Amino acid sequence: MRVITLLTDFGNGDYFVASMKGVILGINPNVTIIDITHDVPSFNIRKAAFILWATYRYFPRGSVHVAVVDPGVGTSRRAIAVMSRNYYFIGPDNGVLTMAAEDDGVLEVREISNRGVMLSDVSSTFHGRDVFAPAAAYLGLIDFKDYGPLVSDYVKLTMPKPVERNGVIEAQVVYVDKFGNVYTSVRRGMFNINYGDYITVNVKGRGIRLGVNRSYGYVNKGEALALFNSMGFLELAINGGSFSSEYGLSEGDVIQIVR
Amino acid sequence: MRVITLLTDFGNGDYFVASMKGVILGINPNVTIIDITHDVPSFNIRKAAFILWATYRYFPRGSVHVAVVDPGVGTSRRAIAVMSRNYYFIGPDNGVLTMAAEDDGVLEVREISNRGVMLSDVSSTFHGRDVFAPAAAYLGLIDFKDYGPLVSDYVKLTMPKPVERNGVIEAQVVYVDKFGNVYTSVRRGMFNINYGDYITVNVKGRGIRLGVNRSYGYVNKGEALALFNSMGFLELAINGGSFSSEYGLSEGDVIQIVR
Amino acid sequence: MRVITLLTDFGNGDYFVASMKGVILGINPNVTIIDITHDVPSFNIRKAAFILWATYRYFPRGSVHVAVVDPGVGTSRRAIAVMSRNYYFIGPDNGVLTMAAEDDGVLEVREISNRGVMLSDVSSTFHGRDVFAPAAAYLGLIDFKDYGPLVSDYVKLTMPKPVERNGVIEAQVVYVDKFGNVYTSVRRGMFNINYGDYITVNVKGRGIRLGVNRSYGYVNKGEALALFNSMGFLELAINGGSFSSEYGLSEGDVIQIVR
Repeated sequence: MRVITLLTDFGNGDYFVASMKGVILGINPNVTIIDITHDVPSFNIRKAAFILWATYRYFPRGSVHVAVVDPGVGTSRRAIAVMSRNYYFIGPDNGVLTMAAEDDGVLEVREISNRGVMLSDVSSTFHGRDVFAPAAAYLGLIDFKDYGPLVSDYVKLTMPKPVERNGVIEAQVVYVDKFGNVYTSVRRGMFNINYGDYITVNVKGRGIRLGVNRSYGYVNKGEALALFNSMGFLELAINGGSFSSEYGLSEGDVIQIVR
Repeated sequence: MRVITLLTDFGNGDYFVASMKGVILGINPNVTIIDITHDVPSFNIRKAAFILWATYRYFPRGSVHVAVVDPGVGTSRRAIAVMSRNYYFIGPDNGVLTMAAEDDGVLEVREISNRGVMLSDVSSTFHGRDVFAPAAAYLGLIDFKDYGPLVSDYVKLTMPKPVERNGVIEAQVVYVDKFGNVYTSVRRGMFNINYGDYITVNVKGRGIRLGVNRSYGYVNKGEALALFNSMGFLELAINGGSFSSEYGLSEGDVIQIVR
Repeated sequence: MRVITLLTDFGNGDYFVASMKGVILGINPNVTIIDITHDVPSFNIRKAAFILWATYRYFPRGSVHVAVVDPGVGTSRRAIAVMSRNYYFIGPDNGVLTMAAEDDGVLEVREISNRGVMLSDVSSTFHGRDVFAPAAAYLGLIDFKDYGPLVSDYVKLTMPKPVERNGVIEAQVVYVDKFGNVYTSVRRGMFNINYGDYITVNVKGRGIRLGVNRSYGYVNKGEALALFNSMGFLELAINGGSFSSEYGLSEGDVIQIVR
């Protein structure tokens, strides 16, 4: 059974996501549908791209990842199907797919223009149901080249890169998770930061001294720490608490790190 | 694999929904279970009925739709199984099933009274787990007539209809989605409203002039618009924002529309 | 198809849960994955244990229940696999599994130490993905004894028991569900409380007289009542409302009950 994953900003409270699943199962009952998340903040393409990047690689080879955060639905923005080394990606051409697809290695990108892979009535406001879900369900049932013409100028989103100047690392907050853990753009191996080191993080004019630990439980409850997390990012956290709320940090914020 | 969908107001934070799924898989492992939503506001039968109506038709023929918004659980309200042209519906006899079932064309409605399609212990507060889930799992394993006696006086909920008087359309808000888009009871083709027209919507004494567009991206960010949405309703929206919050509109509110 | 259930405090908004599912399907595509819930309040082991206890028994024999509420991730706390009479349980050794497993009857507990049932890279902050998900997927593919050495001193969590002194039952709030229904530690048959009785509940110095009914709909909307609920607990509720909000009760609170 081929796996099809779904990632949207549709929420779970309406009829949106289930309609996509119904359409998929109507075309191809031999698939396993897995939700990545539907709680991406409305229209936040960058957050969706990050989540897809963090998740796609754990699925079986040949899985199809459908991501729909699509403020331009119904306008001239293209619908695309991407074949990468190990996966397929289906969604709007606004960057939501490409952080993951480029990471895996893009082999071929096609515009989805073949009306045969869409529902017979295509609305102008819900391509998740009318275009992307059926296009994903048809993968393996038609030739990849039959989706439509090749696209070379698709939109790319990249991970922000930290820079070091005079011993100060200027980094960005790339992700905040539900626990309030703050992922910085500093990744393991980029700079000489190791377990047992102490770093000073400047957050909005305030200096915070943090030990670099292996996990949350190595400091007392309520105490702040740094660690390299499960995706390899230098993370700022509070054991049993929320670093993000405590220090008012959001995605996109800039911080300075000194060893 | 037969598809069984679940639609409730149980939320996703408790043991309710998973218990229903366990019961289903224990009786019939050869089914695919799909959540429609469990985030219907508590006891809101009308909202659940709308969501079921908007979704049911996208599932494969023969799918079983279970909807449980059931403030009368454990009282004399009946449990019913509905066979319509293309689907089955299982739930309480309070209208939650019938907007969808009538739309598809009701063939037969039976009271679920056969104890053989229920768990051996039936609680008086959780028929989702003890009655509706097992009843759905038995579909195809027993004859439909064996659920119980025929019912003809089941509760019906219907979609509100707008009326035009002296050139003013009086309509109702039938749905507000997670983006704050407001669905009016005016549907495509009911009145002479077309792409490119301008309409004036009177919301609580305030007149709002809106262009009828094809999709959100045809107006500037933050700008209000009208469109015919993916379910055919005249929708009031703000590109990248929430019309519902901006203008204080909720489901059931009455508005006037002038072309 | 073996059923694997997942119960965590990871929420549904990040990449956590989907990564676990991807890992499971990559190892063993012949499983059905069911979410119990991921909305357990962060780090609330007791609530997760209760939900697992309330749910596990409804799944087919041989199902694998994975529960990950794991504030000690990456420290010396053990990962365990439990074989009980009818089920398997996988998670951290902090009590989250044992209320359910002991209820079913524990046959064997093993520390998960075999690196062959983990991902090749094990992070120190996300054992849900790197240890527990793969360990669950390997069930049935390897011998249970190959997970690791036997454990006899695993952490146990038990349900609080009410006590009666001089005709007053001192009980605890063991659970509050999404409707605001309050489950007390008094279970059906423990004391001589029956349908039709009246009880007085002392909540923070305030006495509330409640009839013991069969279900919510037997009192007027907005009226408080008691009932024995679908898990056998004496429950305090308001028809169409939230007893928990109305009377300010939370899990762990102590109340007195007089017949």
